[in-house]
Amino acid sequence: MLISSSTLLTFAQNIFLAIGCSQEHAKLAADVLLKADLRGIDSHGVARLSGYVRLWEKQRINATPNIRIVHETATTATVDGDAGLGLIVAPFAMRIAIEKAEKYGSGWVAVRNSNHFGIAGYHALMAVEKDMIGYALTNASPLVAPTFSNERMLGTNPICYAFPAGKYPPVIVDMATSAAANGKLEIAQRKGIDVPEGWIQDKQGNAVVDPHSLKSGGSLLPLGSDREHGSHKGFGLGSIVDILSGVLSGAAYGPWVPPFVAFLEPSANPPGQGIGHFVGAMRVDGFRPAQDFKDNLDNWIERFKSAEQINPDQKVIIPGEPELEAEIDRAQNGIPLVDAVVKDLNELAGRFGVEKLR
Amino acid sequence: MLISSSTLLTFAQNIFLAIGCSQEHAKLAADVLLKADLRGIDSHGVARLSGYVRLWEKQRINATPNIRIVHETATTATVDGDAGLGLIVAPFAMRIAIEKAEKYGSGWVAVRNSNHFGIAGYHALMAVEKDMIGYALTNASPLVAPTFSNERMLGTNPICYAFPAGKYPPVIVDMATSAAANGKLEIAQRKGIDVPEGWIQDKQGNAVVDPHSLKSGGSLLPLGSDREHGSHKGFGLGSIVDILSGVLSGAAYGPWVPPFVAFLEPSANPPGQGIGHFVGAMRVDGFRPAQDFKDNLDNWIERFKSAEQINPDQKVIIPGEPELEAEIDRAQNGIPLVDAVVKDLNELAGRFGVEKLR
Repeated sequence: MLISSSTLLTFAQNIFLAIGCSQEHAKLAADVLLKADLRGIDSHGVARLSGYVRLWEKQRINATPNIRIVHETATTATVDGDAGLGLIVAPFAMRIAIEKAEKYGSGWVAVRNSNHFGIAGYHALMAVEKDMIGYALTNASPLVAPTFSNERMLGTNPICYAFPAGKYPPVIVDMATSAAANGKLEIAQRKGIDVPEGWIQDKQGNAVVDPHSLKSGGSLLPLGSDREHGSHKGFGLGSIVDILSGVLSGAAYGPWVPPFVAFLEPSANPPGQGIGHFVGAMRVDGFRPAQDFKDNLDNWIERFKSAEQINPDQKVIIPGEPELEAEIDRAQNGIPLVDAVVKDLNELAGRFGVEKLR
Repeated sequence: MLISSSTLLTFAQNIFLAIGCSQEHAKLAADVLLKADLRGIDSHGVARLSGYVRLWEKQRINATPNIRIVHETATTATVDGDAGLGLIVAPFAMRIAIEKAEKYGSGWVAVRNSNHFGIAGYHALMAVEKDMIGYALTNASPLVAPTFSNERMLGTNPICYAFPAGKYPPVIVDMATSAAANGKLEIAQRKGIDVPEGWIQDKQGNAVVDPHSLKSGGSLLPLGSDREHGSHKGFGLGSIVDILSGVLSGAAYGPWVPPFVAFLEPSANPPGQGIGHFVGAMRVDGFRPAQDFKDNLDNWIERFKSAEQINPDQKVIIPGEPELEAEIDRAQNGIPLVDAVVKDLNELAGRFGVEKLR
């Protein structure tokens, strides 16, 4: 089923209003969710809406948070999200980073006591609109085992950098630090197909290909998959994200990060509060004139696009390109939703007296 | 052959003096090189000394550079290294980043017109000594092909973050963004053994295991090895490093980065000058009291060290731990050098009238 993004945006906004969010927050949260659907990252879009609502029902998401700065220097700050939706807490933090960058060249904000913030790319792109380089990280519910371990210790902990180009769209690297994102596992589980070796291991730490192993104590593997192919690097990257998002901000970290799903209880005595993020912005013209940077990034893009091809039908893909193609297509033609998601959303609509999707 | 670090330090310092470096620069450059040997990263230590000298002979390294800031805001700067040794240009840039962080909370410096800077960890650790988080990146001679390409477009472009802990040593992630570092290929070439599938491809882009394929037009693969296992993420990480180090600073980037070896000529019309770096420092107490951060990072380390083990004999390794173990061992027992390196160093000593190693 194809649904227009404006219809879905209004729908999501109405649900956020129904749980008590302000007009402004409901609009922003819906916008962040829809950006994921538009960009083809279906696992982070409206398919998650009922998950946010269930966490709100469990009082683990606060619909009327008092988001505030709790520690600050000229170019750094820590924000307490007051258990609000990450979808609004992260943009709040990013606005502070951008304001600091406007004044001092750069701004960096660690966030604690937040929740799932949607796609990292949304937040990083806020900086790009101001001719800044955007940076966004978040820790997440533990699913990934470090090299040599069979215990879930890290989330898929994404790293995102976004860079403004000139005549081309921004270069956006937005990636989970695991070999495969959890969304890909969920798709394989639904389809009942095996996943490639190197994505997951079972409870004992054996390499397996059955995606359901994850539900019986298995874990995702870090980027690199095994020691020989650099899984310690993927583990290192996930650690960077966890330390900046959690240890630096005062959020929970490692295995203590609260689960995103309402049916799993958070740890009893976490060493910090909620999920943590880390966002930043640097003015491009803090380093060289913005136009020089953009011209050179255009040149970088052109050179990489024209790199020699192994297969004549497959060019090199610039980071961010597939998501942009999805965005252009879906903005025009609508967002495809699978039946299970439509059913889930219409159940929500029924409960909250919101107009259903067709 | 085991040689004490102080003997090797004096030796390297004397060579740098002999090519015309100032006392201060010679001492610093030798210190950066020796740190690699101490930490067990043999590919980046004194084994490279004759390579730096050959580049100086070709007038591609300037022994008396006028390193200067060419662009600046309160917390950002661009440094022109005047074709100096990266071993001294990068610490110059890092000192600026640290000064800015002392005043404003954070500092970020892009560097152009530099050369190979040794191990990234040296520079990032300068910040850790001041209770700051250190960041160091550099682009490098093209060896790595993007996903879907068989052309060498990126260096092994390392990423390093270093975090100060309390009672434990710092957590240091210092990693090439390729599946395997070039040093590992060189070892396999010397030993005449195959490398694991997923490290390299031949000139046509076929997966191969013969490490000599690299010398006949082959390329290293990005972290993740192939598309299915996330090589586009390794490519994305290498791109981040290249854009921050090269495009932002005005250095060369992508396939135009000058080769580190003197027998390969640099590109005729590069879009920037020399090799580029990007370094940064953030005060931990810009986010929370430094002791709180360190206590929590100690807790993070302990929790990860005690993660469930797949093999009872193999604990989880904290990023930076193996290098620290090497440093403790080698500071006490000396640095092992293979015969070829000793011979190479003694030839240098002969040419420059420096006392030979035994």
